[in-house]
Amino acid sequence: MVRFGIIGYGYWGPNIVRNIHGISPEKVVAICDKSEKNLARAKRAYPDVHVTADASELLTNPNIDAIAVITPVWTHFDLARQALQNGKHVFIEKPFTATAAQAAELIELAEQKNLTIMVDHTFLFTGAVRKIRQLVDDGTLGKLYYYDSMRVNLGLFQHDVNVLWDLAPHDLSIVDYLIGREAEAIVATGSGHLNGLADVAYMTVYYPDNVIAHLNVNWLSPVKIRTTLIGGEKKMLVWNDLEADEKIKVYDRGVNINSAEGVYEALVSYRSGDMYSPKVEATEALKLELAYFIECVKSGQRPFNDGQSGLRVVKLLEAAETSLKRKGEMVYA
Amino acid sequence: MVRFGIIGYGYWGPNIVRNIHGISPEKVVAICDKSEKNLARAKRAYPDVHVTADASELLTNPNIDAIAVITPVWTHFDLARQALQNGKHVFIEKPFTATAAQAAELIELAEQKNLTIMVDHTFLFTGAVRKIRQLVDDGTLGKLYYYDSMRVNLGLFQHDVNVLWDLAPHDLSIVDYLIGREAEAIVATGSGHLNGLADVAYMTVYYPDNVIAHLNVNWLSPVKIRTTLIGGEKKMLVWNDLEADEKIKVYDRGVNINSAEGVYEALVSYRSGDMYSPKVEATEALKLELAYFIECVKSGQRPFNDGQSGLRVVKLLEAAETSLKRKGEMVYA
Amino acid sequence: MVRFGIIGYGYWGPNIVRNIHGISPEKVVAICDKSEKNLARAKRAYPDVHVTADASELLTNPNIDAIAVITPVWTHFDLARQALQNGKHVFIEKPFTATAAQAAELIELAEQKNLTIMVDHTFLFTGAVRKIRQLVDDGTLGKLYYYDSMRVNLGLFQHDVNVLWDLAPHDLSIVDYLIGREAEAIVATGSGHLNGLADVAYMTVYYPDNVIAHLNVNWLSPVKIRTTLIGGEKKMLVWNDLEADEKIKVYDRGVNINSAEGVYEALVSYRSGDMYSPKVEATEALKLELAYFIECVKSGQRPFNDGQSGLRVVKLLEAAETSLKRKGEMVYA
Amino acid sequence: MVRFGIIGYGYWGPNIVRNIHGISPEKVVAICDKSEKNLARAKRAYPDVHVTADASELLTNPNIDAIAVITPVWTHFDLARQALQNGKHVFIEKPFTATAAQAAELIELAEQKNLTIMVDHTFLFTGAVRKIRQLVDDGTLGKLYYYDSMRVNLGLFQHDVNVLWDLAPHDLSIVDYLIGREAEAIVATGSGHLNGLADVAYMTVYYPDNVIAHLNVNWLSPVKIRTTLIGGEKKMLVWNDLEADEKIKVYDRGVNINSAEGVYEALVSYRSGDMYSPKVEATEALKLELAYFIECVKSGQRPFNDGQSGLRVVKLLEAAETSLKRKGEMVYA
Repeated sequence: MVRFGIIGYGYWGPNIVRNIHGISPEKVVAICDKSEKNLARAKRAYPDVHVTADASELLTNPNIDAIAVITPVWTHFDLARQALQNGKHVFIEKPFTATAAQAAELIELAEQKNLTIMVDHTFLFTGAVRKIRQLVDDGTLGKLYYYDSMRVNLGLFQHDVNVLWDLAPHDLSIVDYLIGREAEAIVATGSGHLNGLADVAYMTVYYPDNVIAHLNVNWLSPVKIRTTLIGGEKKMLVWNDLEADEKIKVYDRGVNINSAEGVYEALVSYRSGDMYSPKVEATEALKLELAYFIECVKSGQRPFNDGQSGLRVVKLLEAAETSLKRKGEMVYA
Repeated sequence: MVRFGIIGYGYWGPNIVRNIHGISPEKVVAICDKSEKNLARAKRAYPDVHVTADASELLTNPNIDAIAVITPVWTHFDLARQALQNGKHVFIEKPFTATAAQAAELIELAEQKNLTIMVDHTFLFTGAVRKIRQLVDDGTLGKLYYYDSMRVNLGLFQHDVNVLWDLAPHDLSIVDYLIGREAEAIVATGSGHLNGLADVAYMTVYYPDNVIAHLNVNWLSPVKIRTTLIGGEKKMLVWNDLEADEKIKVYDRGVNINSAEGVYEALVSYRSGDMYSPKVEATEALKLELAYFIECVKSGQRPFNDGQSGLRVVKLLEAAETSLKRKGEMVYA
Repeated sequence: MVRFGIIGYGYWGPNIVRNIHGISPEKVVAICDKSEKNLARAKRAYPDVHVTADASELLTNPNIDAIAVITPVWTHFDLARQALQNGKHVFIEKPFTATAAQAAELIELAEQKNLTIMVDHTFLFTGAVRKIRQLVDDGTLGKLYYYDSMRVNLGLFQHDVNVLWDLAPHDLSIVDYLIGREAEAIVATGSGHLNGLADVAYMTVYYPDNVIAHLNVNWLSPVKIRTTLIGGEKKMLVWNDLEADEKIKVYDRGVNINSAEGVYEALVSYRSGDMYSPKVEATEALKLELAYFIECVKSGQRPFNDGQSGLRVVKLLEAAETSLKRKGEMVYA
Repeated sequence: MVRFGIIGYGYWGPNIVRNIHGISPEKVVAICDKSEKNLARAKRAYPDVHVTADASELLTNPNIDAIAVITPVWTHFDLARQALQNGKHVFIEKPFTATAAQAAELIELAEQKNLTIMVDHTFLFTGAVRKIRQLVDDGTLGKLYYYDSMRVNLGLFQHDVNVLWDLAPHDLSIVDYLIGREAEAIVATGSGHLNGLADVAYMTVYYPDNVIAHLNVNWLSPVKIRTTLIGGEKKMLVWNDLEADEKIKVYDRGVNINSAEGVYEALVSYRSGDMYSPKVEATEALKLELAYFIECVKSGQRPFNDGQSGLRVVKLLEAAETSLKRKGEMVYA
C-alpha cells in the first residue's frame, strides 16, 4: 500500500486525489493547501482525509509514503527536497523545477535515498500519445521529419510564468518521448502584450538528422486549437486532441524524390492513398499514470517519466527562455 | 486600351490571360512560353492570339503596352528590365525579384521611364483580405497584437526555391498591407528533408510596439491548412481561407488586465461575447487586380502593390533566408 | 424548504441529486432504487441521505414534499399517481407517461390536490434553446417556415421503447416550446433491424400555416449528430449542440419571391449577408430547471413545462407510434 | 466516331460540350438553345460548332448520331422521341421524363430502333459513389440497414418543379444503384412557403428486408449540406460530398444483439474500432459517363443507367409526389 500526502488542492490537485481514491481509496492520508476555500472543498468531498494548511505536517508524517506536489513551479524544489530528505517518494507537477540545477539536485538526492521521482507529464499516458508512440516505434511513420504543434487558447494567464513555461512542457515531453534523442539547439521567439510576460511564443527545437520540432503556444487566441502534425518518410499524421472520436488520422501521403534530369523536370512525385483513424484508448490518462507511479514505488522500477525526463524538459525551457529574451538567438541545449 | 504581352503560360499564366480576356478581350496581343505544350494549349484556347517561344518578340513589339511576367523568380529581373527599357509597363509575379538589389534597380528604372510596376500579390485583392484590412482600419480589432499564419500542404516542390520563397510571400505581403510599418527583425528556422532545400520553415517578424507576425510554411503536410489568427486589443479574428462560406470570424473575446493586488490574485479577466462572420466579397481577386492594373496604367496612378511593396517582401525573404541558414540568428530587416 | 425523495438512481438520477444538493443540500431526504449497486453508489456519495429499495417509503414519508420520478417510462404513471395522492409535488422524467390517458389522469389529480407537476424537458433550460426562443419571440427569425432536427448516434438501445420514444421527446418539447401551437397531423416512418423495435425513425409534424417540423432519430448511426436547422422568413438558424463554443449560428440569408413575369424568368432572388453566433449561457440546464421547480412549488406558480406540456409531447409520440406501425399513414394529432 | 447534337446550353449543357470536346473534339456538330445569350456564349467558346435556336435542325441532321437533351424536364419526352424516331441515340438529363408513361414509351421506341438511351445520373460516375458501391458489393458493409441522405442548400428555386423533382433524383438513382431492388412503398411529406411548390420535403422509401432509405431535400437551408449515412450490419459509412479530401469514412462500429436474459439486462453490445477513409478517384464524373455513353453507342452494349434505370427513378418521384399531396399517405411504388 502506498500512502499519499497531497500538497496543492487548487485546479489539478482534486484530480490527483479523485484518481488515487479510485485506485485504492485508503491511500490518501492528508491534503494540504494554503487556501481556506480549497481546504473546505477537500473536507466536504473527502470527510475522512486530514486537511491542513501546513505542508510540514505531511512532509514529516511517518504514515505517508509518497508526496504529490501539485503547486506552482517556484515551490517545487523546496517541497520535493524536503519530501525526499524525509524518505518519501515524489509525484510532481510539470514542469519539474524552475531551473535545471534544481532538477539535478533532486535527482541526485532521490538516487542517494533510493526513492522514486515521477514528473506528471500526463499527456504521455493518453491513448493518443501512446498510439502515436506505437506508430513511431513500429515503423509505420518511417523516419521522422518533423513535429509541429499548435496549442493556443484564450488564457489562463499565469502570474509567475510566461506562456512557454505554461504550455510548452506538454509538447516538449511528448517530443522527448517520441524522438528519444537530445536536442541540438533551440530558437524561441515571442511577444508580450499585457503584463510583460510573453503571451505568444514560438519555439523551434533542432534534433539530429534534420528532425525538427516546432511549438506554437498562445494565451491570446480567440479559439482553442490543439493540433499537431507529424511528418514521416512513410506516412504522416494529424493529431487533433479536441476531436471526440477521431483524434488521430494517419495519412498514406508523402513525397518521392526522383533523380533529377534537369532543373525544369519534375524532381518529385506525390503519393496519396487512404487515411485511417485508429481507435484510441479512452481510459483517463491520469489514472493510468498514478497506477504506474504506485507500481514503480512498489517494485523499485524506474519510471520512464522520471526526474531525468523532467530535467530534459526543464533544460529546453531554460534554453527557450534565454533565446526568447535574445529575440531568437540560437541556444545550444 | 492596354495591350498585353504575356510571358509564361504554365500554371498561373492562363489565369492572367483568361481574366484580361474577360475584362477586354482585344488586349492580349501575344503569349510566350518556352514549352511547346504550353504554347499549343494557348493556341487552342485563344486562336487569335500570337504565340511564340521567343520573349524578345514581345519585349520589343511596339503594339504591346504592358508585359505580364509570369515566370520563375530567377528570370524576373532580366525580363522586367527589358520590358521597362522598351517602355512597357510591368505586371509581375511574386516574389518580385530574386534579390532586393534587383528590385531597387527595377523601381528606379520604372521611375525614370514613368512606367507602372505592379507586383502580383493577388491575396491583397481577395474579399477576405480586403475585409480584414477594413476591420483593422476602422478600429474594430483595436491595436494589433499578432498575426499568426499556417500555410501548409503536400507539395508542390519547387526546383529552384525553398518553401519560404514559395509560400511566405503571400503572408508577408498581407502583413505588410495590414500593419503598414517596417519590420524590425526577422528570425527564421526550418529544415529540409528531401532535396536539400528547406521544405518546412517558420518565420517570426518583429514589428514596432510588440506587434509580432509568425508564418508556418510546409510542403510536407498531409493536410492542407490555410488558417490565420489575428489578435487585437478589442477583438480577435480567425481567417480560414478553405471555408467556402465563413472565411472570417470575428470574436468579441479578449483579456483585461487589472491592477495587481498580489501574485496570488487574479490579474486578468476574460471577455467572451458574440462571434460574427461578415459576408466576404466573392469576386475573383485576380480579376479585380488586373482591372486595377489597367486603371493605374491609364491614369498614371501608383498602385499600392507597386515595386516598393514588392521590394519590402523581397527584403524580408532575403533576411529570412539568411536567418534560416544560421539556424535562427536574428537578422535586422 | 422543499424536501425531495428521488426514485431512480441509474444514469440520470445522480444528476438530479447532485444539482439539488448544489442548490440547497439539506433537501434530499431519501433515494430509492431497485439496484443494490446503485444504492451503494448513492450511499457512498451521500452518506447522510437515506437509501432504500422500497419506493413506498418515500411516497408515504411525511417529511418529503416532492418526489422526483427518474425511472423507466412504463413506471411513471403508478409512481406519480401515488406521489400526488400522498400530497407530494412531482418532478418527472420525459416522456411524461406511456399514454395520453395516463397523463390526463395525473394532470387532473394534481389540479384537485393543488400540486405541481413538472416534466423534465431539460433542453428547454439550455442556453441554446432559450436563445433560440428569444430569437423567435423578438421577431429576429420572422415567421417560422420549418424546424428540422437530426439526432443520431450509436445506441443506447432501450429494452422497452423504440428510438422515437427515446430520442424524439427532446425535439418535440422544443418544437412545442418554440411554435406554441397544436400540431395538425403526424406522419412517421422507420425501420427496426435488431430486436423488433424501430431503431431508425423519421417524423414529420404538420403545424398550422405551413409550418413543418421534421425529426430524424437513429440508434444505428456511426457518428453522433445533433444538428437542427430552423428556417424563418427573415433569418435562418443552425443549432449544432455538439459545438463547444458556437452552438447557434444565425444567417442573414433567405429568399425573396418576385412577381412572376413568365415561366422562364427568375421568380426569386437570394439574400446572403453576415452570419453571427450569439453567446449562449453556459449554466447547467438541469440546475436552472430544478431551481425553477423549487420556485414553482413554493409560489404555487404553474411551470410552463407542466403536465399539459408533457401531455402534448406524449400525444405526438402516440400518434407517431400509430403512424409508424401503419408505415407512414397520417394521424391527426 | 459519335457525332453529337446538344439541345440546351444553359447551366449544365456547357459541361457536356466541354467534356465531349475533351474526349474527341470533332464530335460536337451543333448546339441548340432558345436563348440568344446562351447561343452567343456557345459561339464564342466553340467558333467551329454550328449554333441554332431551332431544335429540329439537330433532330433531323443526318450527320448527327446522338442527341444530348439538356433541357427542362417537361420538354424531355418530345425531344427524345423525335431524336429516337430519327434514328439518334439519346443522352438525357435527369429526371428522365415528367411521367412514367412517357419513360416507358421512349424505352420501347429505343428498343424497336435498337438505339441507346442513357439517363444522366452523373453521381453514379463519381469516385465516391463507385467506391460505396464497391464496399457494398464486396461485403464490407454487410447487409444494408438504411441509406439516409441530407441534401439541402439555399435555392435554386425552379419554376416548374418542386424540390423533390429537383434534388431527389440524385439520391434515388444512387439508392437504386446500391440496393438493386424494387421499392415496396413510398411516403413523402413536405411544405411550400413561397410560390406554392414544396421547397422542403422528406421522403421515405421502404425496400424489402427492412432496408429503408430516407431523403431530406430543402431549398430553404441557410447552409449547404451533402451528407449521407449508410448503415450496414458489419460497418457503417458517412459520405460527406463537401469534403475535399475525405469524402467517405468507413466506421468499424455496430451493435451486437445478445440473447435477452430479462428486460433489465443489457441486450446489446457496441462495437467500436478504427475508422478509415479510402482514397476516392478524382476524375470528373461527367467525363467518365460520356466516355461510357460513347462506348455503349459504339458497341451496342446496354448502359446500366439506361432508360429502365431512369424509369425507376421517375416512378419513385411520381409516387412521392402523390404521397406528398396526400400529406404522407403511403403509396405503393
